[in-house]
Amino acid sequence: MRRRSHWGWGYEDERPSGEQLRAAAAGLAAHLGFGSAEPEQPVPLEAVALPPPRVALPPGLPLTQDPHARALHAHGRSYLDVVRGFGGRFPHPPDAVATPRDEDELRAVLEWAAREDLAVVPAGGGTSVVGGIDARTGRHAGVVSVSLRAMNRVLELDRDSRAARIQAGTTGPELERQLGAYGLTLRFYPQSFELATLGGWLATRAGGHFASGPTHIDDLVESIRAITATGETWESRRLPASGAGPSPDRLLLGSEGTLAVITEAWMRVLPRPAARRGASVAFDDFETGTAAVRAIVQDGLRPANCRLIDAREAALTLAGDGSAALLVLGFESAGAPLDEQFAHAVALCREHGGELREGSAGAGWREAFLRAPYVRDTLVAMGVLSETFESAITWDRLEAFTERVAGAAREALGPAGLVTVRLTHAYPDGAAPYFTAIAPARRGSEEEQWHGVKQAAADAILAAGGTITHHHAVGRDHRPWYDRQRPDRFAAALRAAKAALDPDARLNPGVLWSES
Amino acid sequence: MRRRSHWGWGYEDERPSGEQLRAAAAGLAAHLGFGSAEPEQPVPLEAVALPPPRVALPPGLPLTQDPHARALHAHGRSYLDVVRGFGGRFPHPPDAVATPRDEDELRAVLEWAAREDLAVVPAGGGTSVVGGIDARTGRHAGVVSVSLRAMNRVLELDRDSRAARIQAGTTGPELERQLGAYGLTLRFYPQSFELATLGGWLATRAGGHFASGPTHIDDLVESIRAITATGETWESRRLPASGAGPSPDRLLLGSEGTLAVITEAWMRVLPRPAARRGASVAFDDFETGTAAVRAIVQDGLRPANCRLIDAREAALTLAGDGSAALLVLGFESAGAPLDEQFAHAVALCREHGGELREGSAGAGWREAFLRAPYVRDTLVAMGVLSETFESAITWDRLEAFTERVAGAAREALGPAGLVTVRLTHAYPDGAAPYFTAIAPARRGSEEEQWHGVKQAAADAILAAGGTITHHHAVGRDHRPWYDRQRPDRFAAALRAAKAALDPDARLNPGVLWSES
Repeated sequence: MRRRSHWGWGYEDERPSGEQLRAAAAGLAAHLGFGSAEPEQPVPLEAVALPPPRVALPPGLPLTQDPHARALHAHGRSYLDVVRGFGGRFPHPPDAVATPRDEDELRAVLEWAAREDLAVVPAGGGTSVVGGIDARTGRHAGVVSVSLRAMNRVLELDRDSRAARIQAGTTGPELERQLGAYGLTLRFYPQSFELATLGGWLATRAGGHFASGPTHIDDLVESIRAITATGETWESRRLPASGAGPSPDRLLLGSEGTLAVITEAWMRVLPRPAARRGASVAFDDFETGTAAVRAIVQDGLRPANCRLIDAREAALTLAGDGSAALLVLGFESAGAPLDEQFAHAVALCREHGGELREGSAGAGWREAFLRAPYVRDTLVAMGVLSETFESAITWDRLEAFTERVAGAAREALGPAGLVTVRLTHAYPDGAAPYFTAIAPARRGSEEEQWHGVKQAAADAILAAGGTITHHHAVGRDHRPWYDRQRPDRFAAALRAAKAALDPDARLNPGVLWSES
Repeated sequence: MRRRSHWGWGYEDERPSGEQLRAAAAGLAAHLGFGSAEPEQPVPLEAVALPPPRVALPPGLPLTQDPHARALHAHGRSYLDVVRGFGGRFPHPPDAVATPRDEDELRAVLEWAAREDLAVVPAGGGTSVVGGIDARTGRHAGVVSVSLRAMNRVLELDRDSRAARIQAGTTGPELERQLGAYGLTLRFYPQSFELATLGGWLATRAGGHFASGPTHIDDLVESIRAITATGETWESRRLPASGAGPSPDRLLLGSEGTLAVITEAWMRVLPRPAARRGASVAFDDFETGTAAVRAIVQDGLRPANCRLIDAREAALTLAGDGSAALLVLGFESAGAPLDEQFAHAVALCREHGGELREGSAGAGWREAFLRAPYVRDTLVAMGVLSETFESAITWDRLEAFTERVAGAAREALGPAGLVTVRLTHAYPDGAAPYFTAIAPARRGSEEEQWHGVKQAAADAILAAGGTITHHHAVGRDHRPWYDRQRPDRFAAALRAAKAALDPDARLNPGVLWSES
């Protein structure tokens, strides 16, 4: 089994060498105008002192207390997590990591956790950027992280209905490889694609590749199977649609491991796209680009890609020279023709003053997009703070919203900081703005600095009417704002549902609700 | 205020005259080969003996004990309800009917209901076909039906985001009239359109006009506002999308008045369609038609109409001569061009052996569709049983499913009965089959006869893997099968949520859960 980096993104055998890292850092420092061109080195795992486990392992269960596994499951991969892991700080390592190979083993682990009074934190790829998988004990005597990674197969395929039964621990590359053997794809490419798992996407309502149409993992679900903390099975019927009461799947979607451990799901899949049309369009400013995006989706078009980046972000990512906002536009199909729709979208862009650029700037975007977490690791080594905030807001409030949120983040970062904006998803009634904040880190007080920026941006998001998260989930980092956002009576209903399903509050304590 | 028929569909001033009724009955009897050409007369309201109310009305609240209001709110408009009302039987009339004009009045009514220990049944248009609004007392001393019909306005419009804030008691024609003044439409046309209300559609997860794409009312929701049994407000943020925890709206959608009283919602609206393309296509049999429908949606097309009716139903509804299955295909747009998509859909139909018919048979379908409930009233007067069953199933199981369900219904009806099938909605992974059952009623034992057919069809639906309802809701009629269908642990979670929100189990007792 390939070994994951204990502090940063990806697998150790895919990480840049020291020399590559120095070259990248020099380039980034020159480009940004800050950050050390001589990156620091992470604290090696051998030098990390994890607290001793508070529980002894029983025989016959798939459990380990290996320091690498414990460090890997101590937290996710937010900027804060990477800074901590880089510095050898793992404040919440689990007392053990379980890797069940099937539901029977999972049930046995849950029974053991109950006997030992352990909290249980379900884990997939460990890529949470919101403190969603920190191995916290809550009110319990210890904590076990339950990795679903040994359950990583496509179990069944229904080609007539274009659906596949997939185990929750399957990563993006693993499921694409297995589906690809049949010419099919889930076509779900969040930035976590390389490491994250289907179960994690379902539990966090992840947002995928498509800019419009069915793009949330929620939309791709036929049915979900899960095991509760007390070992009982929850399985919905496999259906294309149903109106029978509130949707059972929609209660698990977004439950972030607090209601049950998702073990598998029937997912809607597609043939690989046979036709593609794409263009890169420049706009004088973000606002006119926004108007074009709105016209495209409100006219009924559903582009696969419709990513509008502001001039600052175009310059930062070398997609442009910083003089114009850029729209990366793409249509895809495995069947119906695209020409008419593509031509209409291009015409709408031109009506709004857009200028088509040579070549399709969209061609390389996905690879760059998926490599971004590695760049963040480099930035951490260089002493650069790098964080993202994302939300969704209706069109009428979008401009004021982006100004207020970007403004709040800029003010918190100070004059050396840089805040860029893009629209990642577009809906007939609004869009999902995504903010990137980069600044020189205050060495030694990165956590305090990060909290200041997070607080300012999240306060602005709530005050300006947005959601605290469009697709990054709530975890622990978003809890204060989530508590203000969700209807109080809904919180009461969810809390009661939680108590019925998980009477000892064993699952992922502190996520979505208080630990009490 | 126009007066609703106390037993049948619609308003009294729109019901057929005695002469029209006899003419219609003669035509229907000749066409069907059964049913009396001399329709019986309904028992007039004056001859109906409703039980005396068990509660006295306080001053200052919008309450009535008028017999017409009580009869109207005694039950919905299922075949069984119409048979009962026609015969002057109203087994579950409310002790009072409240018609609050705003949330303050609604809260006052809820407080009064709590003081008097009354069950509370929220009601919109009263068009439930599943026993969803019978005024049952549960464990309480009496019951008040709360009509939302006085809250029937479009309160606010956001043209940029194409969204409208609409009160829950607004019917289809009322909201279309108000939105139409701005060139907008909700474009939601269930068969209940004339009478039913937005709040009812939300509470029952109604299915609308579009055959594909966003067609369920669920998909059109930005946010929902509701008042709990204890008078507390539940309001979600107005957002185009959110990934913050399980969706609050999705818990209210399908809650059928058991968790809270929905008072208003922000809904996604559209400009009126500017372009339409349609065709009627004949197929040798239902199976080849089904294959064409599947190809259309799996190639990524999203027709507004894609209704496949079998040869029997084509003959029954005079849409065809009974020699072929018919597909009513339609595309609509308020912006993007349609020609290429329409041509592709037609080509797919031809590839599957479909033959285009002269003219667009689709032109009149909606009017006929919306008049169908009046026809059913005539059938009841003629002594004809008429019932529908609907479900959804993945493509791989569709053929066996329709055979089994139609077969079970036919067997229960006996040789004189007629069972027809259509596909009302199509998804990339499956379709919604809709069955119509017509037979000579066994006069005097219609209820027993109906229960036999319902039992046989519903058992077959569950056994063959379908959902007990795609868009008719659960109510009381579907409870036994719903209980088997939904995950047991989900039921436990819902029950706990219910207890938290409605500790006295006052709201709509017996719907979704047992009355205890």
